[in-house]
Amino acid sequence: MSNEVRPNSRDRLLEAAAARSYLDGVHVGVEALCKAAGVSKRSMYQLFESKDELLAASLEQRAPGFAARLLPPDDDGRSPRERIRYVFERVEKEAAAPDYRGCPYLAVQVELKDASHPASKVAHRVKEGLTSFFRDEAARGGASDPELLARQLSLVFDGASARAGIRADAPAGLLAPTVDVLLDAAGVR
Amino acid sequence: MSNEVRPNSRDRLLEAAAARSYLDGVHVGVEALCKAAGVSKRSMYQLFESKDELLAASLEQRAPGFAARLLPPDDDGRSPRERIRYVFERVEKEAAAPDYRGCPYLAVQVELKDASHPASKVAHRVKEGLTSFFRDEAARGGASDPELLARQLSLVFDGASARAGIRADAPAGLLAPTVDVLLDAAGVR
Repeated sequence: MSNEVRPNSRDRLLEAAAARSYLDGVHVGVEALCKAAGVSKRSMYQLFESKDELLAASLEQRAPGFAARLLPPDDDGRSPRERIRYVFERVEKEAAAPDYRGCPYLAVQVELKDASHPASKVAHRVKEGLTSFFRDEAARGGASDPELLARQLSLVFDGASARAGIRADAPAGLLAPTVDVLLDAAGVR
Repeated sequence: MSNEVRPNSRDRLLEAAAARSYLDGVHVGVEALCKAAGVSKRSMYQLFESKDELLAASLEQRAPGFAARLLPPDDDGRSPRERIRYVFERVEKEAAAPDYRGCPYLAVQVELKDASHPASKVAHRVKEGLTSFFRDEAARGGASDPELLARQLSLVFDGASARAGIRADAPAGLLAPTVDVLLDAAGVR
């Protein structure tokens, strides 16, 4: 029985990896992660091939929650313009939390500096999903160049959340007018 | 004589700290830094109180070069609008380098997640200098709200360089039109 991994060890490791890497950085040690999860290193290595894989899995598991927090519900009756603005209102709200450290999917890529790392790959894909959302809404809203607008909005998303995460600036009074200028220039209704 | 630190050890440590932390991250170890610099750990600790202080000093030493690379020369005859655009043309050029990892002064703050770290403090101050440049040029160029425009341009600077650094996007065809829209909206000549 001593080889058996307790049923919720996996969940607790995923939770600890997501929380600790967000607050302390991806270089948090395996010991610290296992301690935070209350799981032995032996169990961790039975469940995950490596810390890299655990980190990637934790980002993957959090992805639906990330989208649910930031994106408006499907077909909620809002206009494309309102649906785009919704995302940035959410960023503004999240950034006000005292433990806000910016977008976790940007931070992990900045920290790892290695696009081939399994966690970078997950993070890259999650952020591509956000850019796709912007592109679809931009097209539906009649943007003159939906691809350009989607890139601009992704840039603003990352710039604003990174700067809020390091306390260089706060989105209040900055994000909404910036997004409006871009939406206006692209002719989004 | 064995206690004597060779005259260029300090420079080589600063160079190694700047280069390795930029390419590998701030969590690069003391051993790796000393090895890259060809300096003993003993000498390193004679010269710097800690790795944190070495990192901060390396960012400080690189700050004039950072400004010289990005900012136009004083009184170069360019209009404020052209001087602001100049910065982003430089970012576009730098981001094309294969070893580009984004703005080092943003990355170090994202990685450290600690505004009280000596290196975070240096980085924060350097980026404040960039925002001041934008604010001054915005005011000279007749921006309707120079403070807002400076915050917007700093956001765009960080978003574009971070996304280029992680290979999420490239500034080409993105940065210039985005900056132009913001300059136009602010009425900068």
